[in-house]
Amino acid sequence: MASSANRIEIVDVGPRDGLQNEPVTLDVGTRVAFIRRLAGAGVRRLEAASFVNPKRVPQMAGAEEVFEALGDGDGVTCIGLVLNRRGLDRAIAAGCREVNYALVASDAFSQRNQGTTIEQAVEVYRDIADAARAAGVQCSLTISTAFGCPFQGEVPRDRVIGLVAECADEEPFEIALADTIGCAVPSQVADLFGAVMEQAPAAAFRAHFHNTRNTGLANCYAAVESGVRVLDASAGGIGGCPFAPRATGNVPSEDLVYMLHRMGFETGIDLDRLIEAGLWIGEQLDHPVPAMLGRAGVFPPSEPRMQA
Amino acid sequence: MASSANRIEIVDVGPRDGLQNEPVTLDVGTRVAFIRRLAGAGVRRLEAASFVNPKRVPQMAGAEEVFEALGDGDGVTCIGLVLNRRGLDRAIAAGCREVNYALVASDAFSQRNQGTTIEQAVEVYRDIADAARAAGVQCSLTISTAFGCPFQGEVPRDRVIGLVAECADEEPFEIALADTIGCAVPSQVADLFGAVMEQAPAAAFRAHFHNTRNTGLANCYAAVESGVRVLDASAGGIGGCPFAPRATGNVPSEDLVYMLHRMGFETGIDLDRLIEAGLWIGEQLDHPVPAMLGRAGVFPPSEPRMQA
Repeated sequence: MASSANRIEIVDVGPRDGLQNEPVTLDVGTRVAFIRRLAGAGVRRLEAASFVNPKRVPQMAGAEEVFEALGDGDGVTCIGLVLNRRGLDRAIAAGCREVNYALVASDAFSQRNQGTTIEQAVEVYRDIADAARAAGVQCSLTISTAFGCPFQGEVPRDRVIGLVAECADEEPFEIALADTIGCAVPSQVADLFGAVMEQAPAAAFRAHFHNTRNTGLANCYAAVESGVRVLDASAGGIGGCPFAPRATGNVPSEDLVYMLHRMGFETGIDLDRLIEAGLWIGEQLDHPVPAMLGRAGVFPPSEPRMQA
Repeated sequence: MASSANRIEIVDVGPRDGLQNEPVTLDVGTRVAFIRRLAGAGVRRLEAASFVNPKRVPQMAGAEEVFEALGDGDGVTCIGLVLNRRGLDRAIAAGCREVNYALVASDAFSQRNQGTTIEQAVEVYRDIADAARAAGVQCSLTISTAFGCPFQGEVPRDRVIGLVAECADEEPFEIALADTIGCAVPSQVADLFGAVMEQAPAAAFRAHFHNTRNTGLANCYAAVESGVRVLDASAGGIGGCPFAPRATGNVPSEDLVYMLHRMGFETGIDLDRLIEAGLWIGEQLDHPVPAMLGRAGVFPPSEPRMQA
């Protein structure tokens, strides 16, 4: 297998999607330290902050300070989430070089979460994509609730395929299909990625899964089998708690990297250091993280341990 | 797709492999009540008890009483684990109609866990298979540590394939490949099941995974893709705790059934009742279970819930 086909990029979304869904709000310094630990483990692309109204998402307050502290990123691409033009303008002013816009595939969810219809959101995306291009900022697109919606239930696959078709002409840097509520199963993942890849053969795709119903890694495997080579995950699997009702943590990065490395893929990530970063963020959040590698250890162990 | 190709059998191993690895020992009455709840949820085959020395495994004491209480099983096949001839004789005397013998693929593990070399264990298996046949008792074979060993690390795939070849002439009712320590990854699952199916085309295969490193459901998906139609799992995913070091719980049955049903497979299981059984056994064990469906709920929900 060629080296590129064997390479998978992990985008660690813990500093944004993970922390945003934690009950504890961490200060900017701790969030920056988390990002530095991820970078130290070899993560080369990560979601660093969200340029949304801090009154709505207090966990993400201080996005500008995060980017200021990170400086030029030192070889790491730090992504800022933007949901409207004001967010984009803030991201550009903060020196952010890649933004991600989230478009919701379910009308019910779009109305409740972003206060717009899907059609209006597509217009917002077009405006943001144009403005980002003009500013020389890379702009990706995430299609949320692509596999199911908590309000309307099933999301028609044609809706997702149609959104990809509609947005592909803006040439997004990447299009992510997101299982926002963690309901997807592998056959659905293979089907939907197969369909959108056929619909937009020139586009690059990314997969974003939550492990809410324990199918996260199975879905990652199905996405990889379908040819997806960029996967979102969060160190520690933060954003959900193993014992919380409706836990919605991201796929744990360390568990995913373990699986991928043992399958023969390269990620450029030092698994031991990633495990440490996952355990460290759990200490900051004051709860054990859902990721399992930190408890079970890598296999095969460098020094096989004796067990009873 | 033909109905049979679309059917997957779940063997719930919670009453044996799950409970055996719990720190709390449940009495026979509670274990029988657990089995009855599984049967009530539509489970038609399950691992009910272990005919081993109760001094070595106190959680499994009273196997005879379990089988006596279950009577004729009422349409449910109750499997008894046996590790030697004495165990088989006890199982036959107790009226057990299917026994499972576990053969270890790693020399180091076989010596420590069962006190025999692999060659000696194969002889024991032959003796048990012959005696079971003579008694009209169905005999299955599980090959443990087929994907890795905690003592020696990697287990050569040729060793596993060789054991399958060697044992297939005894015509086991089924051959399970077991990821005893939860280290397998999907590509390895596809490779090994593909190889043993080629080696023993007439044999029926079963897959047994632990979710120790979060790859359990991904491995089940890979096994199903390889053509395996019988999967072990335990209600609640008992046998490990989400927060315990080296948690070694089985794949949670309810999470697996959710995935399979949503993929279009039939299991004959009532998912809601299985979730209840998983939550119930967690109450008996006095800790939350690793299974996620009991917390996240089924998707799509019968009545879509409103969320903030």
